[in-house]
Amino acid sequence: MSNSTESILLNPGERLDYFLGGALKMIQSQDYFSSSVDAVLLAHFMTIPRRSDFRLLDFCSGNGIIPLLVSYRTQAPIEAIEIQAELVTMAQRNAKINQREHQITFHYGDLKEFTVEHHLRFDAISCNPPYFVVDKTEALHSNPSVAMARHEVTITLEDWVKQAGRLLKRKGRLYIVHRPERLDDLFDTLLRYHFSVHRIQFIHPKPDRNANGVLMEAIYHGGRNGVRVEPPMVVHQANGDYTEAMLEIYQHG
Amino acid sequence: MSNSTESILLNPGERLDYFLGGALKMIQSQDYFSSSVDAVLLAHFMTIPRRSDFRLLDFCSGNGIIPLLVSYRTQAPIEAIEIQAELVTMAQRNAKINQREHQITFHYGDLKEFTVEHHLRFDAISCNPPYFVVDKTEALHSNPSVAMARHEVTITLEDWVKQAGRLLKRKGRLYIVHRPERLDDLFDTLLRYHFSVHRIQFIHPKPDRNANGVLMEAIYHGGRNGVRVEPPMVVHQANGDYTEAMLEIYQHG
Repeated sequence: MSNSTESILLNPGERLDYFLGGALKMIQSQDYFSSSVDAVLLAHFMTIPRRSDFRLLDFCSGNGIIPLLVSYRTQAPIEAIEIQAELVTMAQRNAKINQREHQITFHYGDLKEFTVEHHLRFDAISCNPPYFVVDKTEALHSNPSVAMARHEVTITLEDWVKQAGRLLKRKGRLYIVHRPERLDDLFDTLLRYHFSVHRIQFIHPKPDRNANGVLMEAIYHGGRNGVRVEPPMVVHQANGDYTEAMLEIYQHG
Repeated sequence: MSNSTESILLNPGERLDYFLGGALKMIQSQDYFSSSVDAVLLAHFMTIPRRSDFRLLDFCSGNGIIPLLVSYRTQAPIEAIEIQAELVTMAQRNAKINQREHQITFHYGDLKEFTVEHHLRFDAISCNPPYFVVDKTEALHSNPSVAMARHEVTITLEDWVKQAGRLLKRKGRLYIVHRPERLDDLFDTLLRYHFSVHRIQFIHPKPDRNANGVLMEAIYHGGRNGVRVEPPMVVHQANGDYTEAMLEIYQHG
């Protein structure tokens, strides 16, 4: 831990993780769902201009990892919304220790109820949502905070897609990280709510393994102009080490 | 050319191509759309039991490459349908020179009008359809036969998906090779006609290039049980040579 971070007050159960070659510090907690490789890859996948007249909103923001990663690449103001109060507080502390409290605004609340006036609609929305359908025959994670982050307890895929349509400008972009198992639901729901799928990249844990993640860029009222499937993102080499591509993203975003 | 094939009568403009390490000979013609890597990869992607009480139908069969490739892996009878009479004749000659005329039946006709009695519905259908929507602002290929094979002139994506639903048993499998650009149309149409998407594999021309092909296995009335995205199929190495995986498929199917 460097000198500059020793003064950060960590609550019990919290730790500091480092991203972007140490430039970004993140408070994470063992009591809450931690930021994962999925969030890092989603931030990397997003096309964000440097200019400040661009408005970005992050859904299901957790401890704020996506807005923080993206803030290093743009002057644009970023808003974010999270339903767990403790995580909003943690995200605000993360913005502060990285001197991003003036660029990023974290809202506490249910994104289903979030509204903005028409002229304040967003250019882009990012979303790292809960991945799993609630299956009443299976027990949820014993930690309710982790269960909410992993399972569609407080929000479903349809809820956040529908709400993205209400909050985006026409031709605004929705960036998603999800599980390939849900590709049918993703396409079905996006198309029903007037999104077109523009780009897709699959995440494979190793070169010879099935995908365990999917990154998507969808355009609100984009029209069917052809889906682009990019070269896969492979996280680990066959020997278990990170791939060059993954190390590069961890280092430089 | 081996002695055994010298006696095959080729019409003007025709040539012989070899697959499966020379075990399969295919008459192709410069006047018609030729079998491509897509057909070879679709045949390889299909899960076909060896047993004979399995019924397989090939849509848009062309010169019969898919039924012929698959016939080396199963005892099952195979049917196929093709709308161009000259290609049906060529497919029948291909079956004959490979001693498959008793296993494969080629039908000449429009698959939109193909019907079977309920108890004769198929276990699996394969389809290497025309990939491109007809765009009235663009000229079609000057060779009408090639235009029909490439563009949705005589049949659309919706036509063949709908017809697959009519001809498959419940839980029957539809195997498709298509272009990733049409993924939105593929998911949309498959889901509307009561197919679930079960497996997907993307075809990349080189490791660092966007996908230019997609293989799909969809199940009629399969229920949404999760899509599996398999490791990508990369056709060429960075230096342009075939990959080991591709050579293996060309040699052994």
